[in-house]
Amino acid sequence: MNLVKNPVTGMKDVLPAEAELRNYVMDVIRRTYAAYGFRQIETPAVESLANLNSKQGGENEKLIFKILKRGDKLKLEEARQAADLTEEGLRYDLTVPLVRFFSAHQAQLPSPFKALQMGPVWRADRPQKGRFRQFVQCDIDILGDASNLAEIELILATTKALANLGFSGFEVRIGDRRLLKAMAAFAGFAEENYDEVFIILDKMDKIGRDGVRQELIDAGFDREAADRYLALFAQMEGKKGTEGIRFLKETLGAHLEEQAADNLTQILECVEQTKEADFALVFDPTLVRGMSYYTGTIFEVAMPEFGASAGGGGRYDKMVGKFTGQDVPACGFSIGFERILLLLEERGFRIPTEGKKAAFLVEKGMSASRIGKVMEEAEELRRNGDQVLVVRMNKNKKFQKEQLTAEGYTEIREFFNRED
Amino acid sequence: MNLVKNPVTGMKDVLPAEAELRNYVMDVIRRTYAAYGFRQIETPAVESLANLNSKQGGENEKLIFKILKRGDKLKLEEARQAADLTEEGLRYDLTVPLVRFFSAHQAQLPSPFKALQMGPVWRADRPQKGRFRQFVQCDIDILGDASNLAEIELILATTKALANLGFSGFEVRIGDRRLLKAMAAFAGFAEENYDEVFIILDKMDKIGRDGVRQELIDAGFDREAADRYLALFAQMEGKKGTEGIRFLKETLGAHLEEQAADNLTQILECVEQTKEADFALVFDPTLVRGMSYYTGTIFEVAMPEFGASAGGGGRYDKMVGKFTGQDVPACGFSIGFERILLLLEERGFRIPTEGKKAAFLVEKGMSASRIGKVMEEAEELRRNGDQVLVVRMNKNKKFQKEQLTAEGYTEIREFFNRED
Repeated sequence: MNLVKNPVTGMKDVLPAEAELRNYVMDVIRRTYAAYGFRQIETPAVESLANLNSKQGGENEKLIFKILKRGDKLKLEEARQAADLTEEGLRYDLTVPLVRFFSAHQAQLPSPFKALQMGPVWRADRPQKGRFRQFVQCDIDILGDASNLAEIELILATTKALANLGFSGFEVRIGDRRLLKAMAAFAGFAEENYDEVFIILDKMDKIGRDGVRQELIDAGFDREAADRYLALFAQMEGKKGTEGIRFLKETLGAHLEEQAADNLTQILECVEQTKEADFALVFDPTLVRGMSYYTGTIFEVAMPEFGASAGGGGRYDKMVGKFTGQDVPACGFSIGFERILLLLEERGFRIPTEGKKAAFLVEKGMSASRIGKVMEEAEELRRNGDQVLVVRMNKNKKFQKEQLTAEGYTEIREFFNRED
Repeated sequence: MNLVKNPVTGMKDVLPAEAELRNYVMDVIRRTYAAYGFRQIETPAVESLANLNSKQGGENEKLIFKILKRGDKLKLEEARQAADLTEEGLRYDLTVPLVRFFSAHQAQLPSPFKALQMGPVWRADRPQKGRFRQFVQCDIDILGDASNLAEIELILATTKALANLGFSGFEVRIGDRRLLKAMAAFAGFAEENYDEVFIILDKMDKIGRDGVRQELIDAGFDREAADRYLALFAQMEGKKGTEGIRFLKETLGAHLEEQAADNLTQILECVEQTKEADFALVFDPTLVRGMSYYTGTIFEVAMPEFGASAGGGGRYDKMVGKFTGQDVPACGFSIGFERILLLLEERGFRIPTEGKKAAFLVEKGMSASRIGKVMEEAEELRRNGDQVLVVRMNKNKKFQKEQLTAEGYTEIREFFNRED
């Protein structure tokens, strides 16, 4: 019987050129964040379903790969539903595992704790072009810092990482859940409807102000509230950065806690003053970010070449408390690793190399002592930092040499059994 | 409800110091193998159970984490056994996925193909000290080279990687399944019993020649065969390296294909002549290696400080054919990544660092412009290759500074709201 050659549905094999690029990108990200004092951690791929299903993961909780119980724990006859057969699953993000990790090891970690995670996550999404069921996420988080030093650092470090990968001219959009809520309150929406309102607001860049207004009305919301809401956004137009925040602070009055506006203003001012990467930090009152766990600042990276977001994050001060019963302020930024990779591939990005690549072709049937000499010669080049491939000479030497040249070997030496 | 703080049974969280060491080790391994022309690939964590259960994995096939089918595919009412509920599982090694990968992408890969894989595998082993249900394997393999150039390269590159991690004075033991079989045939064992004989032979270093003889007899084997077998090993004693191989070649006669002995001799001679790392390549006629898929050369790394093997591998020329119907010669070497890591930790290994580590403590309530100045100062140091942590100043500053010093920060600067 022949076995199954293809990877499982929705997951992919990574060929050498891509694997090398992935490594390179991870390495740049790792070095950049290390320079900012972020420390890498790892958590297992497998997590308790109790945690994965704790309503922190939103829609992702429907996409969990669940692991069948084993041995005595698996009671097939008694099982009435999938939940009876499983108690663990593959993680669908790195945030739930991070918060669990922090809860378990808090006593051994510095405070505040600046964490970097890079690793695969799994979601049983419908397979589609460019989206896979296993993909890498790359998150930095600061736990234990309630001040906006956290946001400032996350933005500076992440934009630096992107700059170190050659990106420039991009935007980081920033907002605050508290501003969002105050705007909705000011318009007259009821608090229990905010999430529904925000889902519609999130379409602003696609359907425009009139579209959002219409959808709100179609969804059964008060026409007056919708008008008052959209009027706010209309008035914000042309008010860039801190100016827009000042307008909201003045307009929203008691609906907005004063500190929220000042906090955001300070982030904008400080990043503007300090940033080294070529990007714009832009206040975006329409920014929503899907996850309901965000409690304050939210942000998103927008690349000019790329419709969707290439990263994002925000503050989630209430999640650690779900594990420990005691809240710890937390703020994170996730780079859209797979999207960044696609962008680099589309640009034909070449990994900067040191040293040359040489290939040594060895004729079949060579004596041990002569092979030894070839190997010594290869070692000598390697000592200079070169990459040296030693391979046997194929029958079709011409094709082999073409293949090697295509792989980037700039020097090809041939070694025969008899010295010429 | 509070959530589950601990990692799932048998898997572990990796804290920063270990995560950084893991990265460092992976990086050294990756760079070393790259210098020898090995190219990294990745395969998904999840594989078809058809492949995982194809008898290539030996005992590991009993330890598979199986993934519950989803949606319409999950027919709970009709399920009679676990197999009805699952069709995919987590990989338990990197060899089966490599061979599947090669079968799927052979046309796009150079021949011979030199592959490097580093990644987690999962085995539902009984949890025990130092053994985890998720652990990293690190394999290099050469596919498409029938000659012993493959073995020579695998040994040279792997020992170089170990040397680059600071290891010296270790042994690589080498043998050949064909020699093993010829010795068993010469002694008079029946071919169908070889595997049982080898399992007993494998205990030689623990129970000695007399112990092996007794166990063979206890297992019901012919006393005469056992004596003849053990006599061979007795005669080999003191015959080091190629001398031992020559003895077997002369003694075993027609039981041994001549090429097998010459092949091994050539590997020993060539590695001896070329090796740069400080290690001994030793012919070991008692070396067995568990996996039944090996067809020729087998090897194992023995560290003086460490009882068990710290790596191993061999030639498996028949596995690709299980996928494609057409055999492709293959040979691989696996570094015991987790064991190497344990050894380095036990030795108190410190990662070589460039640049210094500085911590900037920022007083609470600092203005945006003053924070900006602090950040600029930090950037300046980072440009010199230093790591700079900017954190808010804790109330218990003394404790914070002690913690930072323990983390390796050699310079701690304090920044107050008012300039002094």
